[in-house]
Amino acid sequence: MTGTLGGRFVVLDGPDGCGKSTQMRLLAQWLGEQGVSTASFRDPGTTAIGEKIREILLSPAHDAMTTPTEVLLYMAARAQLWAEEIAPALQRGRCVLLDRWLSSTCAYQGHAGQFGIEKVIAIANDALDRVWPDLTIVLDVDLATAAGRLNRALDRMEQKGDSYHRKVREGFLKLAEGRPDFVVVDSSLDVDAVHEQVVAAVGRLGSSPSQKAWDRQDR
Amino acid sequence: MTGTLGGRFVVLDGPDGCGKSTQMRLLAQWLGEQGVSTASFRDPGTTAIGEKIREILLSPAHDAMTTPTEVLLYMAARAQLWAEEIAPALQRGRCVLLDRWLSSTCAYQGHAGQFGIEKVIAIANDALDRVWPDLTIVLDVDLATAAGRLNRALDRMEQKGDSYHRKVREGFLKLAEGRPDFVVVDSSLDVDAVHEQVVAAVGRLGSSPSQKAWDRQDR
Repeated sequence: MTGTLGGRFVVLDGPDGCGKSTQMRLLAQWLGEQGVSTASFRDPGTTAIGEKIREILLSPAHDAMTTPTEVLLYMAARAQLWAEEIAPALQRGRCVLLDRWLSSTCAYQGHAGQFGIEKVIAIANDALDRVWPDLTIVLDVDLATAAGRLNRALDRMEQKGDSYHRKVREGFLKLAEGRPDFVVVDSSLDVDAVHEQVVAAVGRLGSSPSQKAWDRQDR
Repeated sequence: MTGTLGGRFVVLDGPDGCGKSTQMRLLAQWLGEQGVSTASFRDPGTTAIGEKIREILLSPAHDAMTTPTEVLLYMAARAQLWAEEIAPALQRGRCVLLDRWLSSTCAYQGHAGQFGIEKVIAIANDALDRVWPDLTIVLDVDLATAAGRLNRALDRMEQKGDSYHRKVREGFLKLAEGRPDFVVVDSSLDVDAVHEQVVAAVGRLGSSPSQKAWDRQDR
């Protein structure tokens, strides 16, 4: 069931504290055990340019940052990450795993920040070579559970209030609605139970034909 | 003839070495002498966030930067500059002078970088509150004259080759074609002669009705 995962592009996304990092690690480990070569990246970041953009975005000193500036900076880091890392890894036949992608900008700035999900996608269509991955797994979690998992100093985005983060969760669910390339997983369960659902979703991708038609339809 | 220049937004733009900085200073001084309050900013930059973005953009270390990344970073700095500085200054009735604006991204990334002028403008329409200034003065200069004026270490954009910079000039002229809100000035002339033409263009703006209709038409 993992035979066609080479060259596929899989995103784990969700609100802060949803458990992405843990699930990314477990998924990469599981894929390795199945003999699938993976490449894992984080968005924003990974590239030298992207990590500098990430610093600007997340520094609590930058509280004057407007939502359009956020959208454009996240998209800039993404364009660079695609060209420098993702596209070459996909071409080498790796299964590429991403910690966040366009879905985050849709949920955070588009929905919670009221910039508009449609406008975020329009900018992505103009600026990115590849807009949607083959599969986006949304790790859905309630605010209280998520907050309990963030036991460290919060960055500028995490510091936004509860009502913003409630909207972020709503944004992810809204975006996923009715899309065959999105899977929502209940991430309030324990780590193993979430991992099982993640593996099931990735396994289904491995036994399905390429979903590139979906990508083309949006471009 | 300068009576209605308060609250107007004027951009000086053109290829590297066209003499923008000198002409900005002379124009601000002349407007001051006419009793017009001005506020001068540079794009990208001016704001704390914008200056950090500018560093990323112009660092010669970032030679892997793709054209879409450039477009998005320039636009991010611009969105922040509008919100933090330009909009408040216009509201206070200042005549706002900008060293570069959207016209640069059109000429450099849009035309010379082959991203497409139309796509640059589409992103601006989605991301910026204000897309076009009341007046854009393009200081047009040939490559040899421009190169002679840049007697310092070149930044990443300036380091791009002659054929790129020839395209930049072409891009500015193409963008200005047939637009009533653009004026092209021959900037190979001496400083005083260029200043006279700049003052004439700004003076015409001061005696004309608001051109905001042009802006609205594009949005």
